Amino acid sequence: MYDGIKGFRDFYPAEMAAHREVIDTVEDTAARYGFREIATPAIEETRMYVEKSGEEITEDLYSFEDQGGRDVALTPELTPTVARMVVEKQQALAKPIKWYSTRPFWRYEEPQQGRFREFYQTNVDIFGSEEPEADAEILAFAADTLTNLGLDADDFDFRVSHRDILGGLLEAFDADVDQRAAIRAVDKSAKIEEAEYYDLLTESGLSYEQAQRFDELLATDDLAELTDFAGTDRVADAVTNLEAVLDAAEDFGVRQYTTISLETARGLDYYTGVVFECFDSVSDVSRAVFGGGRYDDLIESFGGQPTPAVGVAPGVMNSTLPLLLQRAGVWPEEELTTDYYVLQVGDTRPVAARIARELREAGHVVETDVSGRSFGGQLDYADSINAETAVIVGERDLENDEITVKDMGSGDQVQVPVDDFPGDRDRPTYDDLA
Amino acid sequence: MYDGIKGFRDFYPAEMAAHREVIDTVEDTAARYGFREIATPAIEETRMYVEKSGEEITEDLYSFEDQGGRDVALTPELTPTVARMVVEKQQALAKPIKWYSTRPFWRYEEPQQGRFREFYQTNVDIFGSEEPEADAEILAFAADTLTNLGLDADDFDFRVSHRDILGGLLEAFDADVDQRAAIRAVDKSAKIEEAEYYDLLTESGLSYEQAQRFDELLATDDLAELTDFAGTDRVADAVTNLEAVLDAAEDFGVRQYTTISLETARGLDYYTGVVFECFDSVSDVSRAVFGGGRYDDLIESFGGQPTPAVGVAPGVMNSTLPLLLQRAGVWPEEELTTDYYVLQVGDTRPVAARIARELREAGHVVETDVSGRSFGGQLDYADSINAETAVIVGERDLENDEITVKDMGSGDQVQVPVDDFPGDRDRPTYDDLA
Repeated sequence: MYDGIKGFRDFYPAEMAAHREVIDTVEDTAARYGFREIATPAIEETRMYVEKSGEEITEDLYSFEDQGGRDVALTPELTPTVARMVVEKQQALAKPIKWYSTRPFWRYEEPQQGRFREFYQTNVDIFGSEEPEADAEILAFAADTLTNLGLDADDFDFRVSHRDILGGLLEAFDADVDQRAAIRAVDKSAKIEEAEYYDLLTESGLSYEQAQRFDELLATDDLAELTDFAGTDRVADAVTNLEAVLDAAEDFGVRQYTTISLETARGLDYYTGVVFECFDSVSDVSRAVFGGGRYDDLIESFGGQPTPAVGVAPGVMNSTLPLLLQRAGVWPEEELTTDYYVLQVGDTRPVAARIARELREAGHVVETDVSGRSFGGQLDYADSINAETAVIVGERDLENDEITVKDMGSGDQVQVPVDDFPGDRDRPTYDDLA
Repeated sequence: MYDGIKGFRDFYPAEMAAHREVIDTVEDTAARYGFREIATPAIEETRMYVEKSGEEITEDLYSFEDQGGRDVALTPELTPTVARMVVEKQQALAKPIKWYSTRPFWRYEEPQQGRFREFYQTNVDIFGSEEPEADAEILAFAADTLTNLGLDADDFDFRVSHRDILGGLLEAFDADVDQRAAIRAVDKSAKIEEAEYYDLLTESGLSYEQAQRFDELLATDDLAELTDFAGTDRVADAVTNLEAVLDAAEDFGVRQYTTISLETARGLDYYTGVVFECFDSVSDVSRAVFGGGRYDDLIESFGGQPTPAVGVAPGVMNSTLPLLLQRAGVWPEEELTTDYYVLQVGDTRPVAARIARELREAGHVVETDVSGRSFGGQLDYADSINAETAVIVGERDLENDEITVKDMGSGDQVQVPVDDFPGDRDRPTYDDLA
């Protein structure tokens, strides 16, 4: 009678259990690096995106006028929001500011494999450091997250680039180039035909020959060639910075997950220095799973003091990361787990409730009958929730002051004194009691 | 330059740490009862609320037309969404279905103390049981949550009522009563003047004298009087059901947190049987903190098979529960905690990075310098994040193959061999090493 909205998904418990395990791993990795959780609003002023994020995002905004006449939008990404938050408390916050949060975002795009209109990201950002160690810590967090999820170096590759190398090369041509438009063309190059890519580059102001030369330069793995070609401090400094970031990544233990790839650009206009995308090496179709980078100018453009910033945002649900984990064979089991089912036979509710309560107080997942089910019905239900142990509280057993503890896997069972269960035991099972 | 939207809040790390502790307690309590996590969309078809939730909610909807011409609304509550989800997978789901989730909801209401336009709830529901044990399990989960948060019986009171007692009494008057309107009046009675309350009751179809009699009946604590007054099976059955729920609550260990209070009604139209509200007993102003109840007809009205349901939804952020916890003196500390700060003096990055990495692998929260700070600057920062232990990696110490471990509380410090740190120790501190 009612349907969910296209591009939005419901997550039922078994699938959600796998997603929760992934989110816990991502957040736990962030927490160990000293990133601190924040929480942020679902809507912001629409003009924040129109003015700052570039055309990639603003075309796809869920925007509307609220009952108070405000032009608002469902947040399509977190970066403008955290920039606003840094500006609001700039004096009070000790630098570096290191934040993380997991939540949904919304973009009105055509749904496709791994892409939905509602998608969940864990955003991780450092504000207040321009040092290469900050970029490298973001790379290290991202790489540790993926290895903690079970991936190894064969499964993924961080393609690392630098906006000032791209911009500096464009600047070095004798042409009036719209650098943002040219960089957007680079970002799209893997997804479009070569002819369209060249059209975009020439529309940005390069001649066709310059576009060819530019494309050749991006393919090099010899950074000195780029410095020589441009002959400017901007490119020389950017090359030095990129190398320093990779040196720090070496010390941080994650250099082996990175490759220099200037053909990586990121779509959003606000990026400045190092940018990177995580590519899936498992799938035949090489595709970006998530990305991040430096955005040193955004806080100032939001009215704050100049504050360098760098961040990354792995997509954790309704995104391509789960697809990568599935293809690599490390996706968590999609199943429920239950420590105890306390089964009632006859009018034994007070005793069953006491046992369930004590097991819960010890931290276990415990269900008991709330549906007036038969013995068989309760046992079927205990099976359906993968209960490890059934505690059978029956009227006749209780006449002998006993209950039955049953291993749901083997079917083995043993009778134990009711007053001694669970007693002082932390997690009593059939094996402990038989 | 950009402001957050009125009625929406940003949560910075220290405050968020306290909220996260509360949310973890609420969710952990739900998980121990065998409730399973789900995740749900932020928007639904607007008509789902217009048709089902009653005027309380539909006036306050954030609704808009999306780019595809759909009339959608930001979800103001979870119940219609979970009802839709149950209908979609009705055959596949083992009953009882027990779900929980924590997420924001949105209502365009005037912000006031403890009330925001964006607020976070943990919704907990059981589908597929009409037994009183299901109602009582919801009450038990809610009471355990509050006691696990540190509250005791002096701090809160669950006022328990029954929609069929209210409806059955209204039915017993010789009048053509709009029961929904009369029950809405009861729900509002504590918040409005007596004259307005009586106006609403008489507008619903009661005469003034009948309204007075109805109000007297609601104040009784003698349920037999209500059965006698109505003389109908509906009221007799409802009284029996309410008593059975409270008997089960006794077995479940939470009867002492409940009071029968027929003046409690809940505002939403879809409630059917037992309803309840948690009242703050700490504050002078008696107010409902959250509530829940039975809604046996909703799934069927959504096109599903008849499926009884009961649930509760404590508000966990931007809501009145944090205010209650604060007034009761059990609000968690709003502060950051950090296990280790690894301090670099001179060019010691490779060693500092190795130590930070090993401490993180052991599960600790570890920060190190990513800003090129001086010794003093790093120490100030370590203080600002409440680091428990500083591990000082200095060039001169390293010449002797040593590092310094400093207790940030006492200032005591000790030198230890660098190759032996952290070594096999799980969580080495000054006290272990001195």
